[in-house]
Amino acid sequence: MQKILYTNSVSEAIDRLVTELSPSSVHIITDTHVEHEVLPRLALSYPVIAVEPGDTNKNIDSLTKIWAGLISQGATRKSLAINIGGGVVTDMGGFAAATYKRGIRFINVPTTLLAAVDAAVGGKTGINFEGLKNEVGAFAPADAVIISTSLFSTLPAEEMLSGYAEMLKHGLLSSENDYTELLGFDILDANLERLLPLLEKSVKVKERIVEEDPREKGIRRALNLGHTTGHAFESLAIHKGAPVPHGHAVAYGILVEMILSHSLESFPSEELYRYSRYLKEQGYGTPSITCDDYASLIEYMRHDKKNDTCDSINFTLLSSPGQVLIDRTASEAQILAAFDIFRDLME
Amino acid sequence: MQKILYTNSVSEAIDRLVTELSPSSVHIITDTHVEHEVLPRLALSYPVIAVEPGDTNKNIDSLTKIWAGLISQGATRKSLAINIGGGVVTDMGGFAAATYKRGIRFINVPTTLLAAVDAAVGGKTGINFEGLKNEVGAFAPADAVIISTSLFSTLPAEEMLSGYAEMLKHGLLSSENDYTELLGFDILDANLERLLPLLEKSVKVKERIVEEDPREKGIRRALNLGHTTGHAFESLAIHKGAPVPHGHAVAYGILVEMILSHSLESFPSEELYRYSRYLKEQGYGTPSITCDDYASLIEYMRHDKKNDTCDSINFTLLSSPGQVLIDRTASEAQILAAFDIFRDLME
Repeated sequence: MQKILYTNSVSEAIDRLVTELSPSSVHIITDTHVEHEVLPRLALSYPVIAVEPGDTNKNIDSLTKIWAGLISQGATRKSLAINIGGGVVTDMGGFAAATYKRGIRFINVPTTLLAAVDAAVGGKTGINFEGLKNEVGAFAPADAVIISTSLFSTLPAEEMLSGYAEMLKHGLLSSENDYTELLGFDILDANLERLLPLLEKSVKVKERIVEEDPREKGIRRALNLGHTTGHAFESLAIHKGAPVPHGHAVAYGILVEMILSHSLESFPSEELYRYSRYLKEQGYGTPSITCDDYASLIEYMRHDKKNDTCDSINFTLLSSPGQVLIDRTASEAQILAAFDIFRDLME
Repeated sequence: MQKILYTNSVSEAIDRLVTELSPSSVHIITDTHVEHEVLPRLALSYPVIAVEPGDTNKNIDSLTKIWAGLISQGATRKSLAINIGGGVVTDMGGFAAATYKRGIRFINVPTTLLAAVDAAVGGKTGINFEGLKNEVGAFAPADAVIISTSLFSTLPAEEMLSGYAEMLKHGLLSSENDYTELLGFDILDANLERLLPLLEKSVKVKERIVEEDPREKGIRRALNLGHTTGHAFESLAIHKGAPVPHGHAVAYGILVEMILSHSLESFPSEELYRYSRYLKEQGYGTPSITCDDYASLIEYMRHDKKNDTCDSINFTLLSSPGQVLIDRTASEAQILAAFDIFRDLME
């Protein structure tokens, strides 16, 4: 079980955990952006291994650099790594720690809302390989995760929106009440004190699901809500040379999958309006897709890692907020119809 | 729990396991030597990924090549890898499988006695990194291991002796009876039919210990008997430009640690004579060390990965065959005295 601390005193929490775990040495793994923007505020005195920032650097070269850094800093089997950064850092630092000397302990300290609600918790670690996302990695839970909204104070609005999409997803997976509470919060106002308890509730939804199915044999696939379509939007946007943030693509993907849920599983139609209105009010924008993009989107969905074969497209759907249905499929005609309704709703 | 099959019908065993596991695809991971010498005899029809043979190729480049091979052969999360080869192949293929898409299933088919009795069983996988042995890796048990002495028919005598040293170690860890049975077997005669039941008994000693302590927090260290000193002999031999096989170094290491066991833990002295006589009769040779090498040997032992700090040297000792004592230390003077006695016995 991962220990998750919700606090706005990050340095104190780190000190406490280090005392408790009494490692032979401590090593901070981060990227050069976080090293300059965030680490000075935390005033920690441990040696730092910093890789280049960004998803394009989530690769074997950076991983090798982290292993080499651990060796040169004298890390033993009883050392502790502290991954401080966004999802790239927690995924890659976690994988480096999980494989250094066949595994040392590590703590995640997410510095983005998206990493806090998603990557830092749940034990999925890894790197991209040959252009494939997270193609190489391991299931390895952090010994502890420190979640603090105080680290998000300098994040741009777009980053907050991106992370909040995953919180909306957890709300939908959890209950009508949790979901409605989230729609009542103005993420652009970004009251970080008020965000912390909402974030705690959201992370606990993920924790509960992961605990039940750590290796994604079944119910963990619920967390893929919005992602089959979201990844397709993301890939198409990259292909067009105008990338969208991960969370924005997921926010759109959730709407498409809500529409499929409506036509296949009687998900209530009023929720489609309520949800799309929230996205528009909060400024998630809209993906500029036309009917000409439909074939490409279907193609991306077919090649999603979550499909066991290339012939079917796997979705997580809902019969209502809180009522989750995993391993559903939809016909191509149904998906195309959903794209049409999606474009209408987001206009 | 790892499933271990002892059989001299390897291809049939593979077919049965493939049927049972019903993977989406099967991929053979091996080295080019085994690909040419052993695979034709097995007549399997699965695609092959072959790396260059030898411990110097147990590195990140070969690992990358295996991952890329799995991608180009279309391996999914439900695929199966079959590692056919010596310890380099089972260690590295196991690590590749354990990390490809965060872990696919794999089977080990060891083609050397050493790999059968040691590397292929017990879930330790990994590669060398920056000149450090198994510096990067994971604990990941194979879904099954197929152990067959029929694969050893073309192995040179030296390879058989090297593997047999690990069997002697298991005998010493197990009981007076098991150990005595092994000293009664002529490995150079290499009756492979008679070897199979002895090998089965030997692997079960390791299985029992690993099951009790898969991540080497305690009793698994019993398996390090002979290895603190053996690794030092191995490193010294490499440094001198005259490498010795791993098992030979372990065979010598066991004798040194028997001597320490005698002086510190009342291990019976007659066993020292019986054991050293067996090594000489079977042709294990003798490491050409002089008093001038003692300081280097001590230095190598101090830097062994098994030590938690650099100040103490960790040994597994015995009070008699079958009576194991882990986490023992010896003073430098005691170790030097043991080297003297070792040279006397092996003359």
